[in-house]
Amino acid sequence: MALIVQKYGGTSVADVGRMKAVARRVADCYREGNQVVVVVSARGDTTDEMIELARQISLHPPEREMDMLLATGEQQSIALLAMAIQTLGLPVVSLTGPQVAIITDGVHAKARIIQVQTERLTRELEAGKIVIVAGFQGISGDNEITTLGRGGSDTTAVALAAALGAEVCEIYTDVDGVYTADPRVIPEAGKLTSISYDEMLELASLGAQVLQPRSVEFAKQYGVQLHVRSSFNQNPGTLVWEGQGMEREMAVTGVACDLNVAKIGIFGVPDRPGVAARLFGSLAARSINVDMIVQSTTAGERNDISFTVGRTDLEQAVATVKQVIGEVGASGFTTDAGVAKVSIVGAGMITNPGVAAQMFAALAQEAINIDMISTSEIKVSCVIRQEAATQAVRALHRAFRLGEAAELAVGT
Amino acid sequence: MALIVQKYGGTSVADVGRMKAVARRVADCYREGNQVVVVVSARGDTTDEMIELARQISLHPPEREMDMLLATGEQQSIALLAMAIQTLGLPVVSLTGPQVAIITDGVHAKARIIQVQTERLTRELEAGKIVIVAGFQGISGDNEITTLGRGGSDTTAVALAAALGAEVCEIYTDVDGVYTADPRVIPEAGKLTSISYDEMLELASLGAQVLQPRSVEFAKQYGVQLHVRSSFNQNPGTLVWEGQGMEREMAVTGVACDLNVAKIGIFGVPDRPGVAARLFGSLAARSINVDMIVQSTTAGERNDISFTVGRTDLEQAVATVKQVIGEVGASGFTTDAGVAKVSIVGAGMITNPGVAAQMFAALAQEAINIDMISTSEIKVSCVIRQEAATQAVRALHRAFRLGEAAELAVGT
Repeated sequence: MALIVQKYGGTSVADVGRMKAVARRVADCYREGNQVVVVVSARGDTTDEMIELARQISLHPPEREMDMLLATGEQQSIALLAMAIQTLGLPVVSLTGPQVAIITDGVHAKARIIQVQTERLTRELEAGKIVIVAGFQGISGDNEITTLGRGGSDTTAVALAAALGAEVCEIYTDVDGVYTADPRVIPEAGKLTSISYDEMLELASLGAQVLQPRSVEFAKQYGVQLHVRSSFNQNPGTLVWEGQGMEREMAVTGVACDLNVAKIGIFGVPDRPGVAARLFGSLAARSINVDMIVQSTTAGERNDISFTVGRTDLEQAVATVKQVIGEVGASGFTTDAGVAKVSIVGAGMITNPGVAAQMFAALAQEAINIDMISTSEIKVSCVIRQEAATQAVRALHRAFRLGEAAELAVGT
Repeated sequence: MALIVQKYGGTSVADVGRMKAVARRVADCYREGNQVVVVVSARGDTTDEMIELARQISLHPPEREMDMLLATGEQQSIALLAMAIQTLGLPVVSLTGPQVAIITDGVHAKARIIQVQTERLTRELEAGKIVIVAGFQGISGDNEITTLGRGGSDTTAVALAAALGAEVCEIYTDVDGVYTADPRVIPEAGKLTSISYDEMLELASLGAQVLQPRSVEFAKQYGVQLHVRSSFNQNPGTLVWEGQGMEREMAVTGVACDLNVAKIGIFGVPDRPGVAARLFGSLAARSINVDMIVQSTTAGERNDISFTVGRTDLEQAVATVKQVIGEVGASGFTTDAGVAKVSIVGAGMITNPGVAAQMFAALAQEAINIDMISTSEIKVSCVIRQEAATQAVRALHRAFRLGEAAELAVGT
């Protein structure tokens, strides 16, 4: 008897018909003799609808109250899915994040899971029940309802899988798996049979939108095997796991594009120790994720520092920057929300020199100007004008022959 | 500085505009120097919409999962109302039933409040905050989300007022107060300035639909003064309190009509001790409220027992009856969901003989047949055909001259 965690996203439970289809899929897994824990997101557009309702009331609703509001979306989903499973004659119970005791820090709207208590889960599983858990939500040490940010249900699922020692964590979504590029942009993009955690992490962070980056981190940290697949068909999806000791057939696994990027440039920063620490420390204190950071020395003792944040964090980041530049005596700052980040990812990159140069050449050929560059061992990212994003992804997909690679099982 | 509990029903927070109006009313009360605890129901039709959604999934959704689903309605309301109050620049915090720790028994869909913990409430009030509490919901000893049944937010409000020792519990609704009869049926019905707990209790139980009966019981038990008034205007409403030692000017205070009634008749019940206890004990064990009970001896050693339950409980009651009649050896049973209960209520009735006879005469004059009769010290109820309900209420309102009584301050 295996323990399987399944996670269904919002499109998978968008309406009553879909909800019933998910119930049947869960039931099948249970009837095969598995213990099943299901994590479910809010239905379809309910989260967006609630956000819109909140905006009609307040332009800046407190994040604590937004969490209070948004957590209801998942609670409705678990109740409805439990009802649907019960009609199939199977024992089932739904649990909210607080009921499971998914303990988070107290950062509203982007809380991090600190601990998952397994007592209640184990008790229900041992009683033979299918357990439906609300994704995206938890409870802080001082009894506050917190949410994990967009895509947080993935993290809930992986955290439960890790805490319970599940055999696999199946992430059901509206696409068949992880692709070499976004199939909506690149029709010839191919599905990957498997991919390593690190590659997935880069792709997830880079806007592939299949998995929340935090969930991949968790999965890597606890060795949870992920299976990303569609809830709309029975096709096998993409396995995310540790592809150890395998020959890399391809230098580049996939191309990602992130439109949720804004750039902030601070100029005339005094060249003395502690300035960067002060700036990025202040941003971190407000839980603003900074992605790329580029520092360049101009003339004399003053530097320019550029960095990117999520576009939704821009307003808050600017407030912090304004405060810090006053304190450290920088000359000023600029912001640009009209950028995009395109990236190539591949564990094979380490042993294939010249991959970055090949990327820059492909972009240059399309006359796309590169604004910022950032590299890691397994990815190269470039910030470019947003209008050129699709063109860039197409060019890179072609340059690295990813259409041909699709049939290969990369990472296995 | 007074502590005031305000409760707003679903129509009072039905849309964004109404929500903002409620926020301003709460703010006014706070700015007058009061500590304010606000209990709020689900917005407008959201509860009905969720029930409909559940029915699309399951004809018999488990009550536990219905509670899980329905509790989200109030949670959305508290978050939105807190946002609206925050935009007015006042400190505010919303709390779910579990967060307050409104402890209930574990009976889903009709839980009873066992205890209200005041620690969190007091802490927030002492920090100067307006506290918004989700009505209708609580948490059982074993961490299950439970709801208090329709109208349960009234009970939440009164329980909080009792636990906190509030000066008054204001119940805001879509009508101006308590009327001598339902103004939608009897246009000449008049608003009562005040009414005693007992009268209100009878009226509430009898389907006046202004307050949940349980909330009036609570208010009486803990001496909480209720003020029933409209959230749509500034008119004073009806005070519900202990009208002790006052001369009753009227024998009858109001006429109520309850359409949520179903009759069950069991015939051929063996005339031996314990049979009724067995029957009504079984119904109570399933938390089915039995209202009127009439037993009549027919020929020999067998009786007929008739009783009424809420129409929504009929199905469950029949299941219980089927089981019990087999065990005790009764001949059979009938059900009738086409009935209504009309009642006259008035604390003055005790000292005014002949009130019941006057009621029967008024109904007879309209050729309305009486099916069952039940009396208490301050009310007389008759079960009649549902089609005749409106006619009966009109006739009784006229017979007891309640239209003229409206200007009098009954009960003061």
